[in-house]
Amino acid sequence: MTARFTAVYHVHGDAASIDARAQAIAVEQSVEMPLSAIDDPHVLSDIVGRVDDVSDLGGGSFAVRIALATATVGVDAAQLFNMAFGNTSLHDDVTLHDIGIPFDLAAAFGGPRHGIAGLRHRAGAIGRALTCSALKPQGISAKRLGELAGRFAAGGVDFVKDDHGLADQAFSPFAERVPICAAAVRAGGGETRYVPSLSGDLGQMRTQIALAREVGVDTVMVAPMLAGVSNFQALVTEFPGFSFFAHPAMAGAARIAPALLIGKLFPLLGADAVVFPTHGGRFGYTAETCRQLAANARAPLHDLKPCFPVPAGGITLQRVPEILDFYGVDTMLLIGGNLLAARDRLSEETAIFARTVAQHFYR
Amino acid sequence: MTARFTAVYHVHGDAASIDARAQAIAVEQSVEMPLSAIDDPHVLSDIVGRVDDVSDLGGGSFAVRIALATATVGVDAAQLFNMAFGNTSLHDDVTLHDIGIPFDLAAAFGGPRHGIAGLRHRAGAIGRALTCSALKPQGISAKRLGELAGRFAAGGVDFVKDDHGLADQAFSPFAERVPICAAAVRAGGGETRYVPSLSGDLGQMRTQIALAREVGVDTVMVAPMLAGVSNFQALVTEFPGFSFFAHPAMAGAARIAPALLIGKLFPLLGADAVVFPTHGGRFGYTAETCRQLAANARAPLHDLKPCFPVPAGGITLQRVPEILDFYGVDTMLLIGGNLLAARDRLSEETAIFARTVAQHFYR
Repeated sequence: MTARFTAVYHVHGDAASIDARAQAIAVEQSVEMPLSAIDDPHVLSDIVGRVDDVSDLGGGSFAVRIALATATVGVDAAQLFNMAFGNTSLHDDVTLHDIGIPFDLAAAFGGPRHGIAGLRHRAGAIGRALTCSALKPQGISAKRLGELAGRFAAGGVDFVKDDHGLADQAFSPFAERVPICAAAVRAGGGETRYVPSLSGDLGQMRTQIALAREVGVDTVMVAPMLAGVSNFQALVTEFPGFSFFAHPAMAGAARIAPALLIGKLFPLLGADAVVFPTHGGRFGYTAETCRQLAANARAPLHDLKPCFPVPAGGITLQRVPEILDFYGVDTMLLIGGNLLAARDRLSEETAIFARTVAQHFYR
Repeated sequence: MTARFTAVYHVHGDAASIDARAQAIAVEQSVEMPLSAIDDPHVLSDIVGRVDDVSDLGGGSFAVRIALATATVGVDAAQLFNMAFGNTSLHDDVTLHDIGIPFDLAAAFGGPRHGIAGLRHRAGAIGRALTCSALKPQGISAKRLGELAGRFAAGGVDFVKDDHGLADQAFSPFAERVPICAAAVRAGGGETRYVPSLSGDLGQMRTQIALAREVGVDTVMVAPMLAGVSNFQALVTEFPGFSFFAHPAMAGAARIAPALLIGKLFPLLGADAVVFPTHGGRFGYTAETCRQLAANARAPLHDLKPCFPVPAGGITLQRVPEILDFYGVDTMLLIGGNLLAARDRLSEETAIFARTVAQHFYR
């Protein structure tokens, strides 16, 4: 018996052809050739994908569960994505809905190295949700970003992250921005942590994270779908002292269910916190998608640590109580632009944000 | 005046709200915050995205052209994707349809290092289309893959590539497979080239490409959307003697237009040949999508070299003449599974494939 993991696809089709379509996906995501051309009994029994279930979801949609050989993945993150959805991502009648991660695969990838408890310890925050804001817009100087960082810290937010658009551009190069922002946050004297965003290839990210460590930073942000998931995996493994925020940039392009990709796979690879666009803001995720995503992030995957869901994307101060009631206490709330809109009152608005979260009485 | 590049989005919406939606995308893909919160005139004039055109395509679809500041990209591939589609990929009413690449950006990325002329030179092939096949299924040993490679070479195909599912698995580890397959192809005595598929993080890919070079390999395959586009860019830059095939795994069906992603962006980053699923096979791309993709790959992007389109995905020998007439002579045809289905007659079928392509009279 070969070890297998399961992938669940949602497929548009009709009842007459769905079994054949399911079998075609099982072949595409494993050996990718006519089975009649395979004479190796081991490959036929242990490597070819196996259709385990086809369920009619109604409205011309079917859930297809396929068992794929764990041996085809090894312990490489990109290969997990390749085997689960590589070629099938090119078919627009299919989305990847879920992956069942067996114990051994979860243990091999390792999950969050710090998780909810680790980030709570860093923030010195028990019994309340955490808070986060973002440095932007890109285009202003490192010095001005540093000033904003200092004012966020003065307001008492737990984490101040780079906007995901901040890379290594000429207007605020990483090597100039990170020391300035780290110093500005530290000067606040509180527990606020600065979270720089890494960019470029793996070598450039390694250089950036080493530079961040030199100036006392211990938490960074990576967008795994831009970085390449294997490179995110490499950074998590090589820098176990660091906490990692995962950003969802480019996560939508491949039609993988957000509750799976952001809520389950990013934590599997080592995200301690996952940023995602919450319902009711300027993105289109439904409340149910957000609820499932957050539940997946927090659910211990076998022996792995739980991960903080970080709802974001146009949250206003007015919505904080509603959002806290929706997500519960093991949540990190991210408000960026709507705090920055306070301009001269940035520290004061940030303090209101921090206080509202700390004093919230959960329904 | 700041240098800008243009991104064209196709947006589902209605005439009454499309202008506001276009403006929201322009903000999302640049400063990602309320413009009222920005007081820096330079950011407002030179960094914020600018809506240049909105055209009604009919059927509730609009083409929105937005000019984005080149300074926000620098010369990092992932940042190009991030600025063009990072957050907007999370909105399911939008696809990224095209990007206008200015001369300086094209020159900075560099494009194919060898291109159509370089691959023709390597294959010793003038005035005909090129041919390619694929080693599979995964799950068989390196020795058996090597036997298949030798038989493809005996049949006279120009390139024999690893199936994109072949990574560094225990059943045929890269370090064992590549020397065996390279030797088997070389033993054929012809011009056939073996093209191993790289996998893992950037460091692992570097190790693999160095190992391939040691055994005389000068062409490799990478799936940029799995590797992370910046890491693909790094490999192309670091190994200028190598030719690169780009594989479309995880390239997604519906969110970035294939003619843009595979036909234009992969070559921009250095692909000398781009594999894609052709129409009429087992994938759903239309003939028009394939025609545009191939045209983009071949079109010299400013001073860059042209790139080989490699139609693939269930092509049979019977379809070769039709496909050659459709794509023309500057094409590399890839038939994998349908040659392997010949089993004992693999070399003979491969020879028929090579001869059919070499002798084709184009309509």
